[in-house]
Amino acid sequence: MVSFRLCDEKIAFTYKFMKLSEYFLPVIKENPKEAEIVSHRLMLRAGMVRQLGSGIYNWLPLGFAVLKNIEQIVREEMNAIGCVELLMPTIQPAELWKESGRYDAYGKEMLRISDRQEREMLYGPTNEEIITDIFRKSCKSYKDVPKFLYHMQWKFRDEIRPRFGVMRGREFYMKDAYSFDIDEKSARESYFKFHAAYLKTFERMGLKAIPVRAETGPIGGDLSHEFHVIAETGESALYYTEDYSYAAADEMHKPEAAPEGVLQARGIEVGHIFYFGTKYSDAMKAVVRNQDGQENAVHMGAYGIGLSRLVAAVIEASHDDSGIIWPESVAPFKVGLINIKSADEKCVKICDEIYAKLPSCLYDDRAESAGAKFATMDLIGLPWQIAIGPRGVENGTVELKNRRTGEKQELSIESAIAHVS
Amino acid sequence: MVSFRLCDEKIAFTYKFMKLSEYFLPVIKENPKEAEIVSHRLMLRAGMVRQLGSGIYNWLPLGFAVLKNIEQIVREEMNAIGCVELLMPTIQPAELWKESGRYDAYGKEMLRISDRQEREMLYGPTNEEIITDIFRKSCKSYKDVPKFLYHMQWKFRDEIRPRFGVMRGREFYMKDAYSFDIDEKSARESYFKFHAAYLKTFERMGLKAIPVRAETGPIGGDLSHEFHVIAETGESALYYTEDYSYAAADEMHKPEAAPEGVLQARGIEVGHIFYFGTKYSDAMKAVVRNQDGQENAVHMGAYGIGLSRLVAAVIEASHDDSGIIWPESVAPFKVGLINIKSADEKCVKICDEIYAKLPSCLYDDRAESAGAKFATMDLIGLPWQIAIGPRGVENGTVELKNRRTGEKQELSIESAIAHVS
Repeated sequence: MVSFRLCDEKIAFTYKFMKLSEYFLPVIKENPKEAEIVSHRLMLRAGMVRQLGSGIYNWLPLGFAVLKNIEQIVREEMNAIGCVELLMPTIQPAELWKESGRYDAYGKEMLRISDRQEREMLYGPTNEEIITDIFRKSCKSYKDVPKFLYHMQWKFRDEIRPRFGVMRGREFYMKDAYSFDIDEKSARESYFKFHAAYLKTFERMGLKAIPVRAETGPIGGDLSHEFHVIAETGESALYYTEDYSYAAADEMHKPEAAPEGVLQARGIEVGHIFYFGTKYSDAMKAVVRNQDGQENAVHMGAYGIGLSRLVAAVIEASHDDSGIIWPESVAPFKVGLINIKSADEKCVKICDEIYAKLPSCLYDDRAESAGAKFATMDLIGLPWQIAIGPRGVENGTVELKNRRTGEKQELSIESAIAHVS
Repeated sequence: MVSFRLCDEKIAFTYKFMKLSEYFLPVIKENPKEAEIVSHRLMLRAGMVRQLGSGIYNWLPLGFAVLKNIEQIVREEMNAIGCVELLMPTIQPAELWKESGRYDAYGKEMLRISDRQEREMLYGPTNEEIITDIFRKSCKSYKDVPKFLYHMQWKFRDEIRPRFGVMRGREFYMKDAYSFDIDEKSARESYFKFHAAYLKTFERMGLKAIPVRAETGPIGGDLSHEFHVIAETGESALYYTEDYSYAAADEMHKPEAAPEGVLQARGIEVGHIFYFGTKYSDAMKAVVRNQDGQENAVHMGAYGIGLSRLVAAVIEASHDDSGIIWPESVAPFKVGLINIKSADEKCVKICDEIYAKLPSCLYDDRAESAGAKFATMDLIGLPWQIAIGPRGVENGTVELKNRRTGEKQELSIESAIAHVS
């Protein structure tokens, strides 16, 4: 499994070109009253999402593009450790959940549904039962393991108090992976492959994620880590050392056991991994034969990442008073092109030329004031801004701005294009 | 809008590399009893899908990869006409459907749900109401139109008799696009942009799709076309001329009005487009101001493609007695690499070398008989097969087979790689 090579394609969802006049970007100037945290406020203001119902959101084009970029980074890192993608449906029959015993145990957070034949169904809040059923029907031998399977699918959890926008929604997008191994030793090796992949995944999104030991809770098992993104606005208190050799969550932190110089920060949980042994394979009789022909319950782990929540977490970790600051890897466009004087024919001509040469560009071609255009670009947080006005056209120069540092440079058109390419 | 340039990226989901020993491909040798049509039979046998409940399917890796390739072709062709992608949720509150009047009109096919607060919700069977709501909240002026928006999302229709596998499932994957225009003339132009994009979309999938005039039915309006893929096993009878200037469905076909030399075939409906004027914008007050400041209801069209059904439709249109024959554009891998003697070190070495050089390859490295491997490759239908055995290794040659024609060639390794690259 270690030598697994697959899917090294680079799929970037990032749009190559778009004129703002033809896009759908309903930005809002005022701060929406209902938004209690900065990511919720900025996602509404930047036209990324709109609420449809309690804890249920429409993802507008800008938000959707970021979600797809995050999805793709997760996909690449899952594929890199030999995890194979499939897709389980959202609606599940109740039977498998009765087999595992969770149908009654899972409280009111499970959205229960009856179809026209009065059959009991539910909107999947997670997928241990389904994946165990898929595995047990096809994999019977030690030759079939280790096997890593994952999917990215919408989940529904009927939270009693949905809040903070997509940070704690009811319909949310999650990557859940599952590992199947012959024994505990192999299963723990698999667990730490996912652990390492998670660190790389979050790093690629420009996030500092800290793995902290966690309780396994109702999912079962004895080994679990949560991954927390550091952000001032985080819900959890974190205690950790620089090398993560010590890291705990509020309830796991014991000041007397902590090393000297322990750091403290706030964190947002964006991933959770579990090794839960044979909890589901025992209940659902998922067994594999070993080399001696003996049947043993398969050892399982589960590995979640909150994809829709990550969009908000990136914003919590990376913004300023003017708006969002996207890391390049998840940015919906790399460059924002601003025509300062859209009625000026020369400006339009130069903008059109640059637009055609940029790698991934949102071109603000609207008949708005320069101030409004700069404010919109700062709000939506594209990594680079290129502004063109009549004076620059005369001199053959443009203004290039780095959204993160705020640094501005007067450059020739060619240099500016080279800079962002 | 015509000059719209965006998203010309080529995203291919197709895996680059995969060893069969590490993949998840549960093929079935016998024909499953429950499968009444060839696509359902082959999708089960080739390990593409597994039924989870009535009309609800798990998409296993091979099926999922084809679904993603189909999704990507549709995405590119929608983007090419300036249609902007977003994502609406699966669970919708009942309120908007009451506003349009469809909450009561839509019968038992709508999956109705109550949450823990006893709020009325539903699993979206289609999205006219939600998209109209998104539009009316942000677009108020003639400057905001024409606007084309689409999403690709799972839908649920509680069919009384789900059957034929994913061809008529209950949870199914659909692309639905919506157009918004200032008046009927402009709306009809938009309609025919989608019409043209649909022909291109299906052609790229290797399908012959015939647009036939259709009744609009309960969705409303006076202009509608269905797109039917020609397949012997199709549910509908089609009558058409070579240039499609005449094309009708069973109920629309009038022998006395048909031109001479009309052709007859069976078809599978894979797309349906509608111009329905102001039906929803009147009911939901979606208005835009024209240049004189007057408010007018916006003119709308809706454009659906059955993404999950298309996977089955491609198979119905392209298979033989040995299995599936994928068109290259949707194939999950381009090449199947067969090691005829996997215990032979020289064969393994050469296979590993070729595997590293192929563009997109599923490598059957398992310890199975050559016959079983050839049968599996024929069944799963990859466009090309490269087989390597001890005799070829001695001569420095491989056998290259074209799955569609069955033609085999003895070639040098370099020529074979060049041939499929």
